[in-house]
Amino acid sequence: MRAIEVENSELEIRDRKHLWHPLTQHKVSPNMLPIVKAKGTILTDDQGNNYIDGISSWYTAVYGHCNNFITEKVSRQMQNLDQVVFSGFTHKPAIELSEALIEILPAGQQKLFFNDNGSTATEIGIKMALQYHHNLGNDRKIMLAFEEGFHGDTFGAMSVSGLSVYNGAFEDHFIRVERIPVPKGDNNEEVFQILNELIRAHNIAGFIYEPLIQGAAAMKFHDAEGLNKILKICRENEIILVADEVMTGFGKTGKYFASEYISEKPDIVCLSKALTAGLLPMGITSCNQKIYDAFYSDDIAKGLFHGHTYTANPLACAAAIAGIELLKSEVIQKKIKWITQENRNFVEKISENTKVKNPRSLGVIMAFELDVETDRYGDLRNKLFQYFMNNGVSLRPLGNTIYIVPPYVISEEDLHKIYTVIEGLFSEF
Amino acid sequence: MRAIEVENSELEIRDRKHLWHPLTQHKVSPNMLPIVKAKGTILTDDQGNNYIDGISSWYTAVYGHCNNFITEKVSRQMQNLDQVVFSGFTHKPAIELSEALIEILPAGQQKLFFNDNGSTATEIGIKMALQYHHNLGNDRKIMLAFEEGFHGDTFGAMSVSGLSVYNGAFEDHFIRVERIPVPKGDNNEEVFQILNELIRAHNIAGFIYEPLIQGAAAMKFHDAEGLNKILKICRENEIILVADEVMTGFGKTGKYFASEYISEKPDIVCLSKALTAGLLPMGITSCNQKIYDAFYSDDIAKGLFHGHTYTANPLACAAAIAGIELLKSEVIQKKIKWITQENRNFVEKISENTKVKNPRSLGVIMAFELDVETDRYGDLRNKLFQYFMNNGVSLRPLGNTIYIVPPYVISEEDLHKIYTVIEGLFSEF
Repeated sequence: MRAIEVENSELEIRDRKHLWHPLTQHKVSPNMLPIVKAKGTILTDDQGNNYIDGISSWYTAVYGHCNNFITEKVSRQMQNLDQVVFSGFTHKPAIELSEALIEILPAGQQKLFFNDNGSTATEIGIKMALQYHHNLGNDRKIMLAFEEGFHGDTFGAMSVSGLSVYNGAFEDHFIRVERIPVPKGDNNEEVFQILNELIRAHNIAGFIYEPLIQGAAAMKFHDAEGLNKILKICRENEIILVADEVMTGFGKTGKYFASEYISEKPDIVCLSKALTAGLLPMGITSCNQKIYDAFYSDDIAKGLFHGHTYTANPLACAAAIAGIELLKSEVIQKKIKWITQENRNFVEKISENTKVKNPRSLGVIMAFELDVETDRYGDLRNKLFQYFMNNGVSLRPLGNTIYIVPPYVISEEDLHKIYTVIEGLFSEF
Repeated sequence: MRAIEVENSELEIRDRKHLWHPLTQHKVSPNMLPIVKAKGTILTDDQGNNYIDGISSWYTAVYGHCNNFITEKVSRQMQNLDQVVFSGFTHKPAIELSEALIEILPAGQQKLFFNDNGSTATEIGIKMALQYHHNLGNDRKIMLAFEEGFHGDTFGAMSVSGLSVYNGAFEDHFIRVERIPVPKGDNNEEVFQILNELIRAHNIAGFIYEPLIQGAAAMKFHDAEGLNKILKICRENEIILVADEVMTGFGKTGKYFASEYISEKPDIVCLSKALTAGLLPMGITSCNQKIYDAFYSDDIAKGLFHGHTYTANPLACAAAIAGIELLKSEVIQKKIKWITQENRNFVEKISENTKVKNPRSLGVIMAFELDVETDRYGDLRNKLFQYFMNNGVSLRPLGNTIYIVPPYVISEEDLHKIYTVIEGLFSEF
């Protein structure tokens, strides 16, 4: 546990001077905790305290931090080709990554458009869907999205995010979006009806969705069959399907991508986070041949005139290629299966506890709501966060939702420590 | 020169299979040229041909490609701390970068908000300007921008970009923007009048501008005094000043930032490109205390709820710290001054040529228009591009504008070769 007297360590004080942290109201937030080392599953603070990284640093470092297999490949890349304009030029790391990725992406994906993060990946997904119809001469300008979806923080991405509760300053500028509830099994028929009415009333261009699990909505699961039917209805109505697999991608649900659980396949897939194995930023928006063909024309204006400077950065490509090699390896696949089973056992174990609501797991993701009277505790979320940190586990509760997304390389001891600390909640809260 | 018979090299063929390149209509574009090595100022293709990188790979690799001083620092960082959530946590590379950056940023800049590229840097600039007024209870929801400005490709960034000519599919979704012409000296009074009328007619929240040089508009220069007066009028009317220094930043204009040429200082500065020394993607949006204070509140909703996963990535921070160290060094400052003078000499030399229109230079940036009947050549831009590549120089003409932004480390021989190849244009075209 971090001693109280180091609450204002040198780095904490220097941090406050010039840094404005993301998703943070600094006036009501405690100091930012200085992390000086990350290795494997462990984060170390400036006082030498260790924390198990129970969410793989926002679902990125799934092969462990500073993984030698990956860093060596990036180091080698850095000696040879760091960066080159990706318009007019190409390079081997991008080509090799495209081949490796197409092999594991959901069936039908054919082309990759590079960018830099999850927000830009979904912006391009939205732009592809809108311009697909524009290029075909269809008057379709409205996007469809789930209530409580989250797809990023740039204007287009914010617009389709139903979750964005603190966006009062920007709402007047949002692109036009209609929303449907997520299918939970018992409400499926109602959702289909709302969907059909919206399709009749509006010219919908595309549907953007987080397949099976809504991450930022607090790891909310929905019904695979219901989602499949929604996708089927959309496809029958020529609505472009944009799967946002930024959080779910690269093995976290037990399969390479969550879309594999659903028989209707997406037209477009948005990727980031674990794509680069927790090393550095990159996004990719992939699509099937149908989308690409609608942009391929003698008319220059039908192209997709989007491009970020560091697009297809060779270092990020090298990290991603190494990551996919690990993902496909027998040892990582075994670990994913093992964590999947451990999560199931844990969910079963805690499901009878009266303080546990809606325990659930899929792949390495496990979540439940802590059923306590939140009024009594006031700032419950921060208390939960601090409880975990004090016990050497880094988790980020969302409200009263506790969830884990451990690195695939986690040891039995560390995974069981996370479970034990979580169980400790039931007597503490 | 690349031999014709390798037009379909192995990498070119593999590239075409799964890659969709940025800003490219593939149907009318030639193969992408495979670059296999970048070292210092030289790019090498898959047939061993060398090209001088005359635009520092989109104004990023200003200290030369694969610069050992920088790559060694990133390698070391990669052994120790690759990535950690930047909400709730902090780390030394971000802290050190914030201190190094505040020291060289235009006067008054106090806080840094991290992101991943130029588009997100300007999106956050726009969000800061809009939410600043929202938080203060002001009804101001319109952005002001220059005609022909370019600020990126996400929805917010596209909206303020007057240049976006291929955005027909998205225009209905743009945020509200009013535009003024750039001040060219002889039109200044007219610009001020338009500005004053717009201010009277609309509740303008912020003004976003590329100071002194509009990059994507083909390195168009404008009048510093005129810009200064525009900024003064905006400030008097409580319009937030958002300087987009993504292209101009980090020494390219001869000073650390173009804003140093102008006495009215920006409230917000957008940074990317050379920020990370051409190694990997990162953006930063900095601001002065006035902006930060408008978000600092007991009211959580007044915070800036924006955050990308790899925000403040330690590897990118390490590259940026190393880059700033180089930028401030005597040897790089000398080189910048030397290129500045060489550019001036070259501009003077070619200014009498009848095929040269509007030759201009500022710092390492030199540009002019080639005054030839473009009809005669049809696809002039591609012919110019190919001419330069055939002569071992990588430049990216914009229409009939030729411009250079060479790496600061360029040798005398290579810089003079660029000039010589440019002069060769005058007999070829």
